[in-house]
Amino acid sequence: MEQYLAHIEEALRKINLPDAPEKLYQPIRYTLDLGGKRVRPFLVLLAYQIFQKDIEKALPLALAIELFHNFTLLHDDVMDNAPLRRGKPTVHAHWNRDVAILSGDALMILAYQELAKIQHPDLANMLGFFNEIALAVCEGQQMDMDFETQKTVSIAEYMEMIRKKTAVLVGASLKMGAWLAGANTQEQNTLYKLGEDMGLAFQLQDDYLDVFGKAGFGKEIGGDILAHKKTFLLLSLQAKIGQNALNTLLEQPYANPQEKIAALRKAYEAQETDKANLAQVVQYSQEALQALQHLPKNQASQWLEYFIQQLLEREK
Amino acid sequence: MEQYLAHIEEALRKINLPDAPEKLYQPIRYTLDLGGKRVRPFLVLLAYQIFQKDIEKALPLALAIELFHNFTLLHDDVMDNAPLRRGKPTVHAHWNRDVAILSGDALMILAYQELAKIQHPDLANMLGFFNEIALAVCEGQQMDMDFETQKTVSIAEYMEMIRKKTAVLVGASLKMGAWLAGANTQEQNTLYKLGEDMGLAFQLQDDYLDVFGKAGFGKEIGGDILAHKKTFLLLSLQAKIGQNALNTLLEQPYANPQEKIAALRKAYEAQETDKANLAQVVQYSQEALQALQHLPKNQASQWLEYFIQQLLEREK
Repeated sequence: MEQYLAHIEEALRKINLPDAPEKLYQPIRYTLDLGGKRVRPFLVLLAYQIFQKDIEKALPLALAIELFHNFTLLHDDVMDNAPLRRGKPTVHAHWNRDVAILSGDALMILAYQELAKIQHPDLANMLGFFNEIALAVCEGQQMDMDFETQKTVSIAEYMEMIRKKTAVLVGASLKMGAWLAGANTQEQNTLYKLGEDMGLAFQLQDDYLDVFGKAGFGKEIGGDILAHKKTFLLLSLQAKIGQNALNTLLEQPYANPQEKIAALRKAYEAQETDKANLAQVVQYSQEALQALQHLPKNQASQWLEYFIQQLLEREK
Repeated sequence: MEQYLAHIEEALRKINLPDAPEKLYQPIRYTLDLGGKRVRPFLVLLAYQIFQKDIEKALPLALAIELFHNFTLLHDDVMDNAPLRRGKPTVHAHWNRDVAILSGDALMILAYQELAKIQHPDLANMLGFFNEIALAVCEGQQMDMDFETQKTVSIAEYMEMIRKKTAVLVGASLKMGAWLAGANTQEQNTLYKLGEDMGLAFQLQDDYLDVFGKAGFGKEIGGDILAHKKTFLLLSLQAKIGQNALNTLLEQPYANPQEKIAALRKAYEAQETDKANLAQVVQYSQEALQALQHLPKNQASQWLEYFIQQLLEREK
């Protein structure tokens, strides 16, 4: 797997950005150099290799999806006023808002520039599919922002939001990798669904770990609680104890943030929303694992299985 | 020509936008309904029809370029803090900054969604070319913003900025329309150059009219002067009288804005930079008109000739 990642990093480094205008291209290089787990391009290559050997041909697609993902992070950080990304100043914090908007735009165009390099008779349909996914990601981000001021959010609405904001691009990575490699429609759709389930499991687990995970490596625990972020945990608790009781819990005076985090954690445990959250993570992961049965058995699909199992390990 | 515009407006109206999330799609509909001269999609259809009859096939390309242009306006307005666009509140003024960023992103994706509908064996190359143009437009916008704080800007740098920010997309409209219609490479390149020249003539004329045009129809005169905008006029004046004399002229106390505008206008006339500006407009327009000789003679190319001549009429 290390080899795949080395391949991706090298390809990202080799993206040829002009020197000028500096404020347009330096923030893009800065963003790409921030690193990250490169999950999506990794999944593109993995899905491709379930059906074909020569992963060189899948690199433009892998890059396109990683560049698009980085574009969404860049603009989301502006909208969320986030000061840090991977422990370093965000682009709008390091430069300014206008630089972040415009270099984000250029980064999205660079994603399409990689898509244009795909050598495949189905390019028009692939481009159309990618655009549908890209629009869904924007919809997810808008829903996420809407939820901040929306009085009531159902768990179904929350699931739809994280599906669009996070899961569809994971699904698209696997589906498009397979599509490019000549997989049939059924295999493509199996991989799309598998990716969506992985994405949902991952996001739900993120929510859980924000409250019940271990602090460390620059990670603060309880941020979602302090921000009153409408997560699966919070919305499940609200469904159990009602809006008024939840408001009391959130708005009452606490001696310090730690006390507030502890109070909410206790409420989650008392109402077993922590268990419900974990049960969801397990369910979506299991569905992803079961979907593997409908795919060819080979080293790449075994790696995919291992990768899904690793995701589950994160909770411990 | 009215027919072409009716076609374009109808196609824009027919773009199917989802109802939700409202804050993502309503600003896009609002932007498209603001109107505009639709110059770029008009030129796509015109260039197409120089070589082919059935302009229906060119509509997705025409829409893609118009959607992309509208995306740039939407984000540029955020960066410029512009309160109004075509006499109505800009998206960020009517909604807010985050809505303008995200709906602009989605609008760019919709442009690519139209490109994906192009039925042509050269789609990959067309997409690659479109991306190059799109990046150049971003570069032009960054240069424009850089110029605001840059101490010295040469006339050559200014010309490069307006070429990228405005002219390349006009060139691309004509070139891609012809490309789609099966024109050969030489014809495509002739039309690209012709479009760039039109774009340069148009922008230089805009600069001129901002100072020497007639007020009215909601148009204020002298805005560029009050903003110390580095236009062809200002940079030419600086080249003639020097930075210090220009600074004195710009920074001295005036009784009111009108007096300042009058003082600069007088200086432009005294140094004949007004004439130099008009000479540039005429030169680029003439080059565009001469390029027509290398294209097939038919009704569409005659319309293009008429259209370029109309541009020149604007100055009177």
